[in-house]
Amino acid sequence: MQDRLEKQLEFILELDKMKQIVRQTYLADASRKENDAEHSWHMAVMCMLLSEYSNEDIDVLKTMSMLLVHDVVEIDAGDTYAYDNVSNSTKREREEKAANRLFGLLPEDQSKRMRELWDEFEEWNTPEAKFAHTLDNIQPLLLNDASGGRSWREHGIRGEQPLKRNKRTGEGSEVLYQKVREIIDKHIEIGNLKK
Amino acid sequence: MQDRLEKQLEFILELDKMKQIVRQTYLADASRKENDAEHSWHMAVMCMLLSEYSNEDIDVLKTMSMLLVHDVVEIDAGDTYAYDNVSNSTKREREEKAANRLFGLLPEDQSKRMRELWDEFEEWNTPEAKFAHTLDNIQPLLLNDASGGRSWREHGIRGEQPLKRNKRTGEGSEVLYQKVREIIDKHIEIGNLKK
Repeated sequence: MQDRLEKQLEFILELDKMKQIVRQTYLADASRKENDAEHSWHMAVMCMLLSEYSNEDIDVLKTMSMLLVHDVVEIDAGDTYAYDNVSNSTKREREEKAANRLFGLLPEDQSKRMRELWDEFEEWNTPEAKFAHTLDNIQPLLLNDASGGRSWREHGIRGEQPLKRNKRTGEGSEVLYQKVREIIDKHIEIGNLKK
Repeated sequence: MQDRLEKQLEFILELDKMKQIVRQTYLADASRKENDAEHSWHMAVMCMLLSEYSNEDIDVLKTMSMLLVHDVVEIDAGDTYAYDNVSNSTKREREEKAANRLFGLLPEDQSKRMRELWDEFEEWNTPEAKFAHTLDNIQPLLLNDASGGRSWREHGIRGEQPLKRNKRTGEGSEVLYQKVREIIDKHIEIGNLKK
């Protein structure tokens, strides 16, 4: 058991690096960009509070667990900005390698479970994975909305880009997708997203 | 339903402030102090991976939910350093007021549920609350250990202080309490904690 606990604690300490992986989204008050640990926490709480809007019944614990660890691969692979096409072309390969190393730190049963959760999220087929993706898409939109679209303006994003990124958001939740559309339309109107 | 969703989203945006509540614990690499959102995320993942060490059977989803929101009151009440006796004397009153305002933003059923989770954590009686407190105590110890006891050294903490703070840690998990004792004893020996 001692060896098992040591492996778990090594993984847990390695996870600390998530707090230093900076995303492109600004906090609501636009004071700085958020990091992966904060983003994952925010979505896990959102999952607790918004699961009633999932199109299909979901296992909340499983969805929450998926959200808590789905970005862990970025410790090695880095954050890939949603609208960076070059980095997105190599994303899968970098993240596969990261998953092997990082989840490999855990005892075998937990390593397998974490990997399955991550694969399920990436494959985007189950009700839990669909709802997790819905939250992963709406969370930065809520922050972009609150911060006056700062990240979009800095990157010169066009309205069709978040629309394309959100084309499957409705598969997890029609209700939340309506909200997503509302936010995007508003910022195209204001001009924070280019036409 | 629209009104219900708006209330939930208002609370979710308010939660963003957790990312700016700085704790006294340094990240593992000692580069900066961690914030409440990061701390809560870290513990929720620890709960996923370490629940097998709970002395009693626990509902993992409930414990994780408790860990995700137990520090939300600090948005209004601020973080109270474990070894600051003056601030700790007014902590309960400040946090009660904060809980009323913050959870009050949610629709009534969810407001009640969040408040119950927070009360249960504070009352420290159920197996879930005991295990949540164990994680809340061991998480900063693991970071203090990794960062060479920086926070303890800066505050001139004596070994008896973390020992006193951890006097109920074994109620949640005997195994994790052994680890806590090991870490504290090591840092008293090294001198990062004063005798």
